[in-house]
Amino acid sequence: MEHIPILRMGEFLLITVQVDMHDRLALQLQDDLTTKIVQYGSHGVLIDISALEVVDSFIGRMLGNIASMSRVLDAQTVVVGMRPAVAITLVELGMSLPGIRTALTVERGMEILRADVAASQGEVEAEGPEEIADGSTQV
Amino acid sequence: MEHIPILRMGEFLLITVQVDMHDRLALQLQDDLTTKIVQYGSHGVLIDISALEVVDSFIGRMLGNIASMSRVLDAQTVVVGMRPAVAITLVELGMSLPGIRTALTVERGMEILRADVAASQGEVEAEGPEEIADGSTQV
Repeated sequence: MEHIPILRMGEFLLITVQVDMHDRLALQLQDDLTTKIVQYGSHGVLIDISALEVVDSFIGRMLGNIASMSRVLDAQTVVVGMRPAVAITLVELGMSLPGIRTALTVERGMEILRADVAASQGEVEAEGPEEIADGSTQV
Repeated sequence: MEHIPILRMGEFLLITVQVDMHDRLALQLQDDLTTKIVQYGSHGVLIDISALEVVDSFIGRMLGNIASMSRVLDAQTVVVGMRPAVAITLVELGMSLPGIRTALTVERGMEILRADVAASQGEVEAEGPEEIADGSTQV
């Protein structure tokens, strides 16, 4: 199978990594993901790695790349479902996944993303309330 | 990898099938899924097969089994993301997936499940409104 499926869930995208990653598959995933972020205007990406028993430096780097690409497209990335053994291996490999947020479950990851989107929308609204306050209605 | 991950999304469970199914993996999936339905009290199961380019009679039967098992545990199953070629093959194999509902995307599948849950909750509420109507408040 040549593609890792990317599922659209509202304003977020969900990827579950189940197969062993190799170069071509990783590049394909980056391609597909960036295309979908732009196509759907997604604000967040959830990557579930609960099926992975081993995460090597290649996958670690790929996760970092995906997070960086998503960020420049205005989408946040949360990695969910990491196994305890994987966390140990990653740190032992010297990869603490800087710039990547993690959550234990998809649901918690979604909460983080929702809070993020709400916060950034709040900022946008907070910038321009005076125009509304000025226009008092007269009947 | 020995397990297909099952993700909990609110009151539903999501499975994305990406690897070739074999006997042991299918049995493991049935085990895991029924356990999680009971554990979380889930009302719906979404199975995404968008990564599958070929669905043979074995997978077709497995989908049917999963749907039946879920149903007796009071959970509905929706298969999402089927490719056009897969639909053709299934019917040519004489498998029209009786008793399995399908939707084109995860989002549509979730809408179907939500409508279902709302309808069944509506029935429960419709059975006992008179007790409430009787108790008129007197101040």
